[in-house]
Amino acid sequence: MRYPSSNKTYQKKVSHANRGMALEELINDANKYYLDNNIAIIYKKSTPIGIVNVKNDKSSKTITKAYFKEPSTLDYNGVYKGRYIEFDAKKTENKSFPLANISAHQLEHIKNVINHQGVVFIIININQEYYVLTGEKILSFTNSYQRKSIPIDYIKKNGYKITSYRNILLNYIVVVDEILEALYEKN
Amino acid sequence: MRYPSSNKTYQKKVSHANRGMALEELINDANKYYLDNNIAIIYKKSTPIGIVNVKNDKSSKTITKAYFKEPSTLDYNGVYKGRYIEFDAKKTENKSFPLANISAHQLEHIKNVINHQGVVFIIININQEYYVLTGEKILSFTNSYQRKSIPIDYIKKNGYKITSYRNILLNYIVVVDEILEALYEKN
Repeated sequence: MRYPSSNKTYQKKVSHANRGMALEELINDANKYYLDNNIAIIYKKSTPIGIVNVKNDKSSKTITKAYFKEPSTLDYNGVYKGRYIEFDAKKTENKSFPLANISAHQLEHIKNVINHQGVVFIIININQEYYVLTGEKILSFTNSYQRKSIPIDYIKKNGYKITSYRNILLNYIVVVDEILEALYEKN
Repeated sequence: MRYPSSNKTYQKKVSHANRGMALEELINDANKYYLDNNIAIIYKKSTPIGIVNVKNDKSSKTITKAYFKEPSTLDYNGVYKGRYIEFDAKKTENKSFPLANISAHQLEHIKNVINHQGVVFIIININQEYYVLTGEKILSFTNSYQRKSIPIDYIKKNGYKITSYRNILLNYIVVVDEILEALYEKN
């Protein structure tokens, strides 16, 4: 899959449309495009909840009490070219990415997915820009530094910037291709 | 990964423990074993629900009204040897597997996962036995016959019987290995 290089007119439209659009919507849009165009199957996982009470009516069941559970994995997963893909998306207002955004369970899960040769990453929205930082790069940061947040310079140097394609503002699958290429070169 | 051949003493224990144990528990047990022993990461997806009302307390959020959504994908997914795995588990009391157990959306999803080179199947519990029937075999059945259920003979002939290993009554990952081997031979 090759994408044409961006042009200025398009870039302008993108930043306009982008204003105020939530990160989750951008990813859902991309996922819908990938599904409809037979590129990949990636879904947002259902929110994990604990069900306490269910009322059974004649025709339907209604949940009357439930609570949100802490997620121990990442929010999105699916398949691309046979490979397992999993990621999360986080927005930060700071000039760095606070590691408090990733729970200890999630960090453990990231390690695990890497061990099983899955492709795992975080999409980081920082100052109107979007980067993919792989699980490997997150772990090598947490292993090397005792810092509570990842500086933007580390993200820019070690991450992949996500660009847009047509109406797909966050065309992250191109980055997944680069990650897979790097993986195959290594093996 | 090679497993020792079964012995009679063990088989006896298995069928005893098996009594009354729900299919979902058996799969959760296997998945926990695979996770703990670094074999695979497979989770049951959270039940998809639609949230209608949420009450915000000082310290917590409680869902006060929600409903169950119809699943359009399969219940379990994850990663094994880098490959995307997705499946569902169904019990049938009949001598055949009613295709009404799989919704039109799910069948469409199965086709899709196959197109993206994922490994997709149904675990069928029929008369105390457990079989894996791949998405490919389900589709070739629905494409060839106008029947409303898959006869047990077709399942036995085209499926893989799941055997047990130690305390893992449904050691389905061995079948996934066979499916992957067959895939690699084909390509």
